[in-house]
Amino acid sequence: MAEEVLLFGVWASHFTVRVQIALKLKGVQYKYFEEDLDNKSVLLLQYNPINKKVPVLVHNGKPIVESQIILEYIDETWPGYPILPKDPHERAIARFWAMFIDDKCTPALRKACWGGENGRESWDGENGREKAVEEASELLKFMEEELKGKRFFGGKSIGLVDIIANIIGFWLGVFEEGSGVKLLTRDKFPKLCNWVDEYVSSSIMKESLPPRDKLVPFFQNFFRGAK
Amino acid sequence: MAEEVLLFGVWASHFTVRVQIALKLKGVQYKYFEEDLDNKSVLLLQYNPINKKVPVLVHNGKPIVESQIILEYIDETWPGYPILPKDPHERAIARFWAMFIDDKCTPALRKACWGGENGRESWDGENGREKAVEEASELLKFMEEELKGKRFFGGKSIGLVDIIANIIGFWLGVFEEGSGVKLLTRDKFPKLCNWVDEYVSSSIMKESLPPRDKLVPFFQNFFRGAK
Repeated sequence: MAEEVLLFGVWASHFTVRVQIALKLKGVQYKYFEEDLDNKSVLLLQYNPINKKVPVLVHNGKPIVESQIILEYIDETWPGYPILPKDPHERAIARFWAMFIDDKCTPALRKACWGGENGRESWDGENGREKAVEEASELLKFMEEELKGKRFFGGKSIGLVDIIANIIGFWLGVFEEGSGVKLLTRDKFPKLCNWVDEYVSSSIMKESLPPRDKLVPFFQNFFRGAK
Repeated sequence: MAEEVLLFGVWASHFTVRVQIALKLKGVQYKYFEEDLDNKSVLLLQYNPINKKVPVLVHNGKPIVESQIILEYIDETWPGYPILPKDPHERAIARFWAMFIDDKCTPALRKACWGGENGRESWDGENGREKAVEEASELLKFMEEELKGKRFFGGKSIGLVDIIANIIGFWLGVFEEGSGVKLLTRDKFPKLCNWVDEYVSSSIMKESLPPRDKLVPFFQNFFRGAK
């Protein structure tokens, strides 16, 4: 049977792009469906009836949802490029950082740049923005430390944490440009800045990341237009 | 080398008990350290310097944190009883429900019984409690549906989702008794109620779950005492 791989996503979503990066690293051919989140497709609601969110991967008719779960599925299903390490303890460390980025860093970065927990509200009280920038910086320090002695979070090559960290590797720069907030400075975060440079210039990211000149006005409109 | 397995936990924490269940299912001997969260041990802070939370598993000196990540580690490290299914798609489904329980159900159940997102605040506005009960019930309906035709979430035997679902299988009853809120009724949730009956009477749960008569006053004090 010919294999069928479908991906339902949104071009500007770092969650969607994670899945595209993983599929490209594995060399898996797939058909992409762009979703309109204001008018979700019947297929998206059918494949993800509980969360109704992108990305959704559909492999031979079976849906898989939640980007971290999809990345694990891709790694377990297709041979070739290893996304997670083989060693159980190294796998646990990678999963920890993936969870740390999603649960802690992503909301903090949005709040620092755009305000509010989900980036669509104002900052809280006096100096709210400065406090949010400080909190996000504290989290980024842990990521800076984790890069010590390593080229990528995955070691010599891009792995699970690097894919999940596209919010830092690419979207943060877009958020900074769009919002005027500067978080990732070379004096405070030299390793993270070097990692970002290598990240965006790697061939896999060049063919996976959306055009920056379209993303900046998209997020300015998305976050600021909602206020 | 003799294997050393240490677990740092809190007796009343369903996150800690998940790890104890998994270790017992695998037949792994371990040394347990009860933590005082108001006065955390030097070892806990050393092994989990970022989140500073229980549970922490330490295997031959290497720490693993976050209960879901610990369960995956246990399943990958020790043979015997399978915690996750072998098939990648079934694994993805199990991980989805585990995430659903942690991200959606757990805060909703706490809010319905004790108020606030984290169970330590009041309900929001008029009919806040009724709304919170309704929201939690909507989530439980998905869990009820998922049990269709199955004895456990893991099929014929207890698996990842059943272990993660100890918040529903045991703690929810404690919350109901302590708070006076009734969520899990047999007319609305017949499959979940049958599952709870089987769950608490299984031998692995009998030896893993903390004493109910101590838990009820513990949570009454924990949630209500904080207001």
